[in-house]
Amino acid sequence: MTIKVHEKLLLTGAAGGLGKALRERLKANCAVLRLSDRQDFGAAAAGEEVVLADLADAEAVDAMVKGVDAIVHLGGISVEGPFTPILQANIVGVYNLYEAARKNGVKRVVFASSNHVTGFYRQDETITADHPARPDGLYGISKAFGEDLSRFYFDRYGIETACVRIGSSFAEPKDRRMLATWLSFDDLHRLITACLTTPALGHSIIFGMSDNAVTWWDNSRARHIGYVPQDSSDVFRDAVYARTGQPDLTDPAAIYQGGGFVKAGPFGN
Amino acid sequence: MTIKVHEKLLLTGAAGGLGKALRERLKANCAVLRLSDRQDFGAAAAGEEVVLADLADAEAVDAMVKGVDAIVHLGGISVEGPFTPILQANIVGVYNLYEAARKNGVKRVVFASSNHVTGFYRQDETITADHPARPDGLYGISKAFGEDLSRFYFDRYGIETACVRIGSSFAEPKDRRMLATWLSFDDLHRLITACLTTPALGHSIIFGMSDNAVTWWDNSRARHIGYVPQDSSDVFRDAVYARTGQPDLTDPAAIYQGGGFVKAGPFGN
Amino acid sequence: MTIKVHEKLLLTGAAGGLGKALRERLKANCAVLRLSDRQDFGAAAAGEEVVLADLADAEAVDAMVKGVDAIVHLGGISVEGPFTPILQANIVGVYNLYEAARKNGVKRVVFASSNHVTGFYRQDETITADHPARPDGLYGISKAFGEDLSRFYFDRYGIETACVRIGSSFAEPKDRRMLATWLSFDDLHRLITACLTTPALGHSIIFGMSDNAVTWWDNSRARHIGYVPQDSSDVFRDAVYARTGQPDLTDPAAIYQGGGFVKAGPFGN
Amino acid sequence: MTIKVHEKLLLTGAAGGLGKALRERLKANCAVLRLSDRQDFGAAAAGEEVVLADLADAEAVDAMVKGVDAIVHLGGISVEGPFTPILQANIVGVYNLYEAARKNGVKRVVFASSNHVTGFYRQDETITADHPARPDGLYGISKAFGEDLSRFYFDRYGIETACVRIGSSFAEPKDRRMLATWLSFDDLHRLITACLTTPALGHSIIFGMSDNAVTWWDNSRARHIGYVPQDSSDVFRDAVYARTGQPDLTDPAAIYQGGGFVKAGPFGN
Amino acid sequence: MTIKVHEKLLLTGAAGGLGKALRERLKANCAVLRLSDRQDFGAAAAGEEVVLADLADAEAVDAMVKGVDAIVHLGGISVEGPFTPILQANIVGVYNLYEAARKNGVKRVVFASSNHVTGFYRQDETITADHPARPDGLYGISKAFGEDLSRFYFDRYGIETACVRIGSSFAEPKDRRMLATWLSFDDLHRLITACLTTPALGHSIIFGMSDNAVTWWDNSRARHIGYVPQDSSDVFRDAVYARTGQPDLTDPAAIYQGGGFVKAGPFGN
Amino acid sequence: MTIKVHEKLLLTGAAGGLGKALRERLKANCAVLRLSDRQDFGAAAAGEEVVLADLADAEAVDAMVKGVDAIVHLGGISVEGPFTPILQANIVGVYNLYEAARKNGVKRVVFASSNHVTGFYRQDETITADHPARPDGLYGISKAFGEDLSRFYFDRYGIETACVRIGSSFAEPKDRRMLATWLSFDDLHRLITACLTTPALGHSIIFGMSDNAVTWWDNSRARHIGYVPQDSSDVFRDAVYARTGQPDLTDPAAIYQGGGFVKAGPFGN
Repeated sequence: MTIKVHEKLLLTGAAGGLGKALRERLKANCAVLRLSDRQDFGAAAAGEEVVLADLADAEAVDAMVKGVDAIVHLGGISVEGPFTPILQANIVGVYNLYEAARKNGVKRVVFASSNHVTGFYRQDETITADHPARPDGLYGISKAFGEDLSRFYFDRYGIETACVRIGSSFAEPKDRRMLATWLSFDDLHRLITACLTTPALGHSIIFGMSDNAVTWWDNSRARHIGYVPQDSSDVFRDAVYARTGQPDLTDPAAIYQGGGFVKAGPFGN
Repeated sequence: MTIKVHEKLLLTGAAGGLGKALRERLKANCAVLRLSDRQDFGAAAAGEEVVLADLADAEAVDAMVKGVDAIVHLGGISVEGPFTPILQANIVGVYNLYEAARKNGVKRVVFASSNHVTGFYRQDETITADHPARPDGLYGISKAFGEDLSRFYFDRYGIETACVRIGSSFAEPKDRRMLATWLSFDDLHRLITACLTTPALGHSIIFGMSDNAVTWWDNSRARHIGYVPQDSSDVFRDAVYARTGQPDLTDPAAIYQGGGFVKAGPFGN
Repeated sequence: MTIKVHEKLLLTGAAGGLGKALRERLKANCAVLRLSDRQDFGAAAAGEEVVLADLADAEAVDAMVKGVDAIVHLGGISVEGPFTPILQANIVGVYNLYEAARKNGVKRVVFASSNHVTGFYRQDETITADHPARPDGLYGISKAFGEDLSRFYFDRYGIETACVRIGSSFAEPKDRRMLATWLSFDDLHRLITACLTTPALGHSIIFGMSDNAVTWWDNSRARHIGYVPQDSSDVFRDAVYARTGQPDLTDPAAIYQGGGFVKAGPFGN
Repeated sequence: MTIKVHEKLLLTGAAGGLGKALRERLKANCAVLRLSDRQDFGAAAAGEEVVLADLADAEAVDAMVKGVDAIVHLGGISVEGPFTPILQANIVGVYNLYEAARKNGVKRVVFASSNHVTGFYRQDETITADHPARPDGLYGISKAFGEDLSRFYFDRYGIETACVRIGSSFAEPKDRRMLATWLSFDDLHRLITACLTTPALGHSIIFGMSDNAVTWWDNSRARHIGYVPQDSSDVFRDAVYARTGQPDLTDPAAIYQGGGFVKAGPFGN
Repeated sequence: MTIKVHEKLLLTGAAGGLGKALRERLKANCAVLRLSDRQDFGAAAAGEEVVLADLADAEAVDAMVKGVDAIVHLGGISVEGPFTPILQANIVGVYNLYEAARKNGVKRVVFASSNHVTGFYRQDETITADHPARPDGLYGISKAFGEDLSRFYFDRYGIETACVRIGSSFAEPKDRRMLATWLSFDDLHRLITACLTTPALGHSIIFGMSDNAVTWWDNSRARHIGYVPQDSSDVFRDAVYARTGQPDLTDPAAIYQGGGFVKAGPFGN
Repeated sequence: MTIKVHEKLLLTGAAGGLGKALRERLKANCAVLRLSDRQDFGAAAAGEEVVLADLADAEAVDAMVKGVDAIVHLGGISVEGPFTPILQANIVGVYNLYEAARKNGVKRVVFASSNHVTGFYRQDETITADHPARPDGLYGISKAFGEDLSRFYFDRYGIETACVRIGSSFAEPKDRRMLATWLSFDDLHRLITACLTTPALGHSIIFGMSDNAVTWWDNSRARHIGYVPQDSSDVFRDAVYARTGQPDLTDPAAIYQGGGFVKAGPFGN
């Protein structure tokens, strides 16, 4: 059973892939689920509200946040690309979000950060949340910005945040790299639920992954969150190996944790 | 099956809450279980001995220890309170106990230390046994004293001790904090059994907790003990959340691991 | 003697306080010193060039960078304040700078970061460059952004950067906090010279301070730079104590390393 | 199901105890299993090749390696003894093996190292692969040599190696020490399979143990390998305790992880 | 010049060896120096007060502390010996002192701890203040108690303490061990002055030693105190070597940092 | 003044570059200096003995060691090259040396190890003696072997060793890399003297370098040795920069600490 510790919960990025996966699941966490995205994605169902907002628009973000108890922030850009859209959505956007949280008294945020914050670590090393950021592109840098900004809003204003460095959250792992990085939708929901309900969250960084055998990430700094994954990529292992070839270990995409991101771009502005 | 590596085992504090919980369980660990407490608590059953002793009385403690192979030391005061009783029971008392062990050739002790040795760490951080003590009161300080004293008796005289920093050992967790700190009676027994039977104990500090999802403690420094908890507070989670409110995260009792202890007192002498 | 390993060196922020302090000193490091700032600050002297550029203007920044061998980047905003100017100068600006460096083949940058990246550490603790960022405001966050971005440009494109977390670089320390954070102009120049001339700089973070007795920062991770401070705040110690009162240790400005910054604002957009 | 990522796999030391245990199991990992040992040990079965080679003979080793995709190197001496045989088999031998791998383009090796590389750590402490070597004899030193040499072949030539510090791999644990160090044959096979199939192995050191309750080793640095043990010494615990006495904790063999090795010898040349 | 940041300073243990050495020196730190010891040690000079107090007498200690701004606590027993006197002077005594500080609003204490808190570390290893206590006797344990208690009074009541683990403070080093542990009287005074005047002291542990070439202690955690030793045992080195023989490295007194303390006693009650 | 704590000191490799530099200097450390090398290098002077020995010849090594109090072992091969000579001189040789020390009761050795034990660390990182070995060739591997072997002889037989990882010990630094790695002959002598005279040496690893501004090595684990360098490469800095060009930072020799060694060979047997 999911514990409803919040009355009204905001889910941003509700029209995206993860937003869709969480929409039904998060209803169990609250009385009212407010959904937001940039553009119209249909009507609110029972127990839902819909508030459209461009993250770069401070007023719209303020309206989006007003009246909620907690925020699950998936909104913004989630792939590597040109600088300006990332700047607007992920840098201006996250600033707007935390300012709105501060002004409206929201005290807990689950922030969808990314494994691309540390994408330039090698696939043959294990890191913790205390390892310095080694972003693999502008997208990863923008997520590091969100982590740093939320740290400040905790130290200064007491707003708690879980920075969830999401690995690869899809229905199933698509390639050998994702055997390490895979996060099932159910485990994503478990993780968000843990972040929303743990008594003291503080400002915590946690790698978002299922209980995969191969992993590069050590969540031992975040045991106070109480996340216990129930799924594993291992059941997909044979199938993935069967349909993919051996990695070329001279290719940066096979060497570094960020995979293909480490050699994407440059995309310009 | 519990392995009986000791012939005669001493359990101090036998009349207290944990003492009662362990009395039956520890019979499986030895041929004879000697029970001790400060005041009369009834007669010895089969396979038991009873030796009354005030821990502050060196001679009585010596008599209590004579002839046993190992000690499970729960005796003394286990709550925050005035200084003098804590001094007598937990400081003079533990000194008397180790002197008696030294004189009588007892080579292994399980010492009931407490999470209050580190109660001033935050609930949003994870600590190991190597983190410096941050006691949350006179009781916690007295337990830190016992840890330091037992370290000396190991370095100097080869007496092995497991300092078990007991979290909250009750029939079930009573509040949200105890979801993190809970140690079932059965797991307490498993932990003590591990400490008594592991080939080389050395001087080890281990956090006494069940396999709870939310935790603040990392026992990876103590894997040589072989403690594997079988219980978890998680089965009580929904019920605890249902009957308790959200913590006030400006309250020290909600911020720090020691809970209410961090704001108890001062009690004077 | 200063070693001239670069032919043409760019100094941004040349019209600011530190820019003025470095203008004469840096001539010893290069054949030609290119000076830049946002607005007209006078004509170039012998051995100088002047190129005006708004950091938020990518084309202007590209022109500013073209043809130089290395960059000392002091430009941008250096105090806490509203978000938008910091965004333009320190986030868009530093992105523009590194894009220009990449396109123009500049391989080494000295980036003026700030102690405000870690301003929410306490004044009674010592940190290294590996401690996670704890920025004390939007300014500090923007400098953390610059550090992360430059890390990426090193990992991906091989552009070396020294992130110099400047403490308090003034003619002399003004208050008791600056006894810890003071960086003399000569030591600032020594530090920049070390960064420009050390054979392998990599991506390094170094705290910019003189050889002060009281300090909160440990530069042992950056010994490969070879910075050896020659000045110390200690000669000003008695005078500073004489004219300033005891700090109020319940005031965040006296508790945290960032001093007054930790309670500035919010300033809005 | 075991994934066959290699066409032809070489198993050295095929006539030894572990070699025999792996011979059948490793057939699942490859199309052709080449078996090697120093002296004749019978004919090749279907799907097998046999190539005899003295490890100290560079030419023979080159022939043994030619044409394989990966190597599981169990060959050499595996007990403490006189220096010259260890020198020939484990030092000259491992050099010959890596030279042959380099010349023949073999890019992945599983090297049977030993817990005796760190045998002089105490049984009451937990170590990781980053702890400095503390070998307990000439055999342990020779295995440390193999670890260092293989590190070089990775840094210089990109040949990946897993140094598996095998604990005690027997049908079942023989004494109390082996309750900590035991590695079942099936888990050994699982571990080797993980090393052979993980996408990026790098140069990794991993302790070879089953999922034993008591352990001295922390494999958290090697999670990228994806080894998940399925067996445990715990099922043998009662029987082992029943037939063995209490250790004498003044005996180096009971104090140190290496057990009896720490007091073997000296054996001379 | 010494900075007088305190009006009235209390020096306990004023009649002891270090007390005498500091009596004149500390006058430079305050307007009035209050001196205390257990028994009459003569009259107050100009700028002095004398208040006799047995540390185990809570009322006397309260009177001793009333009206001072800061405390330099040298009082108590400073050698290994029977338990009861150490208990009274160093455990009850330090509790009484901090209770008196709390009640009387004293916010800063320099507490004379001891290297014997960590006396069971080896002379061939270097430790920091974060290493766990390894006391070498009852005296060292009592000093560890004072460190833990003062940590609590900081976390709970904001009373700052410097725990100065004094090495060997004599006119000159007497043996080879003291070449490592020596603290000149002038450096002791410099260290206490640093502790009294640094803006934020917090709860800090610092090893009290001069700038000796051979040392076992790393004070890098305590740079915020600003202690810079000016003396060194090295000028006494040749003389000490000439009059002392080679240490017997099988003798615990030569192996461990605590020297002869590690084999003193047991002394009983 | 140098302290003579040893009566008869053995210097191996006496005919090599460093041997010659130390021959006169080490006379100050002992009554009799025994010199050894493989081949005749002239007659003994007053206060000297000469014993020729091939390190690979166990009997000759035993004769060389008999009767000395301590050993400074510079002998063997000190450059990258074919395997067999390194095997004989540096692996068999160092084994013979320690066996001779064991048999003849020699309790202290200064072993000339090398920075090439860790040559595959980058020039932009700082390492301590606790970082795992990353040798840059067969020579570096052989020195790692000597370090491991001497660790064993300490743990097992109590023979103390200082493994001095010599940087570049020449009359003056020859290139930019050596500005970091330079060890003057006088500092080499100071370091060896410190190793010979410190009361408790244990088994210690120390980087052999002068007080150079640029360095990659942190000797803070070895403060108990008491080595205080008096020379610095900095006085040669301008001259070295003037006669050498900028390093090519895509060249492994400029990236890694081992310099040219990291790309030498392979040399075969």
